[in-house]
Amino acid sequence: MGMNFLVGQSGGPTAVINSSLAGVYETARACGAGRIYGMHYGIEGLLNEKLLDLDQLLGKALNIELLKRTPSSYLGSCRYKLPTPEQDEGVYKTLFALFERYQIDAVLYIGGNDSMDTIAKLAAYGSRIGSPIRFIGVPKTIDNDLMLTDHTPGFGSAAKYIATVMKEIIRDSNVYDLKSVTVTEIMGRHAGWLAASASLAKGDDCDGPDLILLPEVPFSEELFLSRVEALRKEKNNIVIAASEGVRRKDGTFLCDLAGGDGAVDAFGHKVTLSGTSRYLEGLIRHHLGCKTRAIELSTLQRCASHLTSRIDVNEAYQVGGMAVQAALHGQTGRMSALVRRQDAPYVADCETVDVQAVANKEKAIPAGWITPDGMQVTGAFEAYARPLIQGEQIPIYVAGVPLHTRL
Amino acid sequence: MGMNFLVGQSGGPTAVINSSLAGVYETARACGAGRIYGMHYGIEGLLNEKLLDLDQLLGKALNIELLKRTPSSYLGSCRYKLPTPEQDEGVYKTLFALFERYQIDAVLYIGGNDSMDTIAKLAAYGSRIGSPIRFIGVPKTIDNDLMLTDHTPGFGSAAKYIATVMKEIIRDSNVYDLKSVTVTEIMGRHAGWLAASASLAKGDDCDGPDLILLPEVPFSEELFLSRVEALRKEKNNIVIAASEGVRRKDGTFLCDLAGGDGAVDAFGHKVTLSGTSRYLEGLIRHHLGCKTRAIELSTLQRCASHLTSRIDVNEAYQVGGMAVQAALHGQTGRMSALVRRQDAPYVADCETVDVQAVANKEKAIPAGWITPDGMQVTGAFEAYARPLIQGEQIPIYVAGVPLHTRL
Repeated sequence: MGMNFLVGQSGGPTAVINSSLAGVYETARACGAGRIYGMHYGIEGLLNEKLLDLDQLLGKALNIELLKRTPSSYLGSCRYKLPTPEQDEGVYKTLFALFERYQIDAVLYIGGNDSMDTIAKLAAYGSRIGSPIRFIGVPKTIDNDLMLTDHTPGFGSAAKYIATVMKEIIRDSNVYDLKSVTVTEIMGRHAGWLAASASLAKGDDCDGPDLILLPEVPFSEELFLSRVEALRKEKNNIVIAASEGVRRKDGTFLCDLAGGDGAVDAFGHKVTLSGTSRYLEGLIRHHLGCKTRAIELSTLQRCASHLTSRIDVNEAYQVGGMAVQAALHGQTGRMSALVRRQDAPYVADCETVDVQAVANKEKAIPAGWITPDGMQVTGAFEAYARPLIQGEQIPIYVAGVPLHTRL
Repeated sequence: MGMNFLVGQSGGPTAVINSSLAGVYETARACGAGRIYGMHYGIEGLLNEKLLDLDQLLGKALNIELLKRTPSSYLGSCRYKLPTPEQDEGVYKTLFALFERYQIDAVLYIGGNDSMDTIAKLAAYGSRIGSPIRFIGVPKTIDNDLMLTDHTPGFGSAAKYIATVMKEIIRDSNVYDLKSVTVTEIMGRHAGWLAASASLAKGDDCDGPDLILLPEVPFSEELFLSRVEALRKEKNNIVIAASEGVRRKDGTFLCDLAGGDGAVDAFGHKVTLSGTSRYLEGLIRHHLGCKTRAIELSTLQRCASHLTSRIDVNEAYQVGGMAVQAALHGQTGRMSALVRRQDAPYVADCETVDVQAVANKEKAIPAGWITPDGMQVTGAFEAYARPLIQGEQIPIYVAGVPLHTRL
């Protein structure tokens, strides 16, 4: 009788988080697992005993192909911070009672650093009470800010999407014989990996963004405006990639710099005229007086499954499968991770790392990968990121649109 | 000696406007044209004698394939309203002197209804002075609001992009076990064709947007809020597609409903808290108090050449070629147009129509294609629009991103 698996998805979705689920399911099935359950809406759903039978849902080969092409979290997700056992042991008792009721041998959780915190806590509690259950994390986040893995599944596809639409926006912004500044706002509150990926737009046919603003570099209005002013003398149309996490030296996020006092919306509610790109748009217009527009890439950068990186899809699948292997080999309190063997040609494989060392930490862009003026990235960033956006996974088009699967 | 052609691109860009340019160039070349010139930045550039030699730029087969995959206007564009000869005959004298200097036999202009106005005026003036030059328009606009053509090149690709990302946004919005409302703002100030295209997201795997707000239907706050409230009882996550052109019965655009008096941005400038989706977001939050987010599809919907409709790409090419044929056959003051022969299977071909009857007019969605409550479209809309988003044109990926061409 094979091991019984329970797998959940947590935190913000990505375009390839379901490829990790596919990797977990197919690997567990291929390795002779017993039952394979999914948590409906992560740990939060599990606490309400919302379990799904994955054989019923994913048992056909076409379902797996569709799953790999479906954005967002197929099983549903949650943003639930597991308390410590000292804070609330009841939650742990509930969870371990459920694990026992369903005879679970291994719990796999696909997510970012909060989810790794969940796995770390469950593994520690399990050890304390002498439970044989294995707890393994599967990395996922477009933000690419997890420690101990070369990069995170989800990042490559988001980076490919951002680089592609940045090229398109640059072409669009050059259509008129006029001067303009376009500010594109890109996700990443604490690390600038995604904004930096806009640089991958650069090639023989595209200059790439003229400036890149990162959370890693304190924002100086003066320096920024002088760079924009200098660029305006060189070229008609300036395109800026700005991380939503850009902040001043004192730590204030640009997106939190409120509009003037008394700003209220049409319903009389006090509002903050928030948004990094809108702030920068106002700044440029105020000081330089030129035509400026703000574009927020918004949720599309995390859910554009119509444009994913094949490398990313495959690696997302692999870390899922690796987590199953780790559980089968008796590991617990681990996260599957990607190790890069070389850049060119790109070679990477999977191992597992201590999930406790990943939980609640954030990885920033190395300072040496940012140019001295702080507004571009160097060739070292490209050597790191370019391999991760290679290859495509072609959608299955039905009636003119990509086909997905859903619960 | 073959005819000499001059072709320009005008108005807002689309993902397939360059396919029309490819159709013009290749057809003219195949039909034994003499010189083929492009206007750099439309009529405005032409007035400054900015002409390009298209044989030099497009003479290789690969360039044509890249051109068809490059968004925005390859030749550059302008927003220039040609005065009437009564207002300023000097402009006409300048233009016709240029036509003579370069021995131009036919002038083709790819654009929307303003551009058709330009062609109509030039053709009328040409007839008046007895010029043998032929003036032909090539339709282009994502807005699909041109008269006398079944649809406009550019619409199908924008519609396919919108339907695709709408599916992705709907999946993304369903990730948590929470109640939420997502308002997606879609282009189309005067006609709702693009917002209506969000309905094409609907299929076996997707419910499509729950409500669609169109410029064709006067907006009633009361009716809208009661529909949202009713939907909240049926389902967790509501997704609304809203045209940027939604207006009240009195004609006020929602996007122009200003924030309260005294709203100033961080630089002390008076601002309007504009945007249809942000207005609706505030409205819902104010009256229903639920989690709401606004997404603007922004310029991506007109420049996403990584996701185009093959039907649209081909038709854009065909109307370009048809305009060349019309000029060769001595026509002037005409626009090439698409005529639908049947819906299923979809069959269409090209003819030419009187450009004067197209200029400065707008085509709205027929009232019968909108549901009685005004917040959805009927099967008739789908029968019309679904064929136009069929097929894909796969980008040529180099270094992980689609390759373009540029001047």
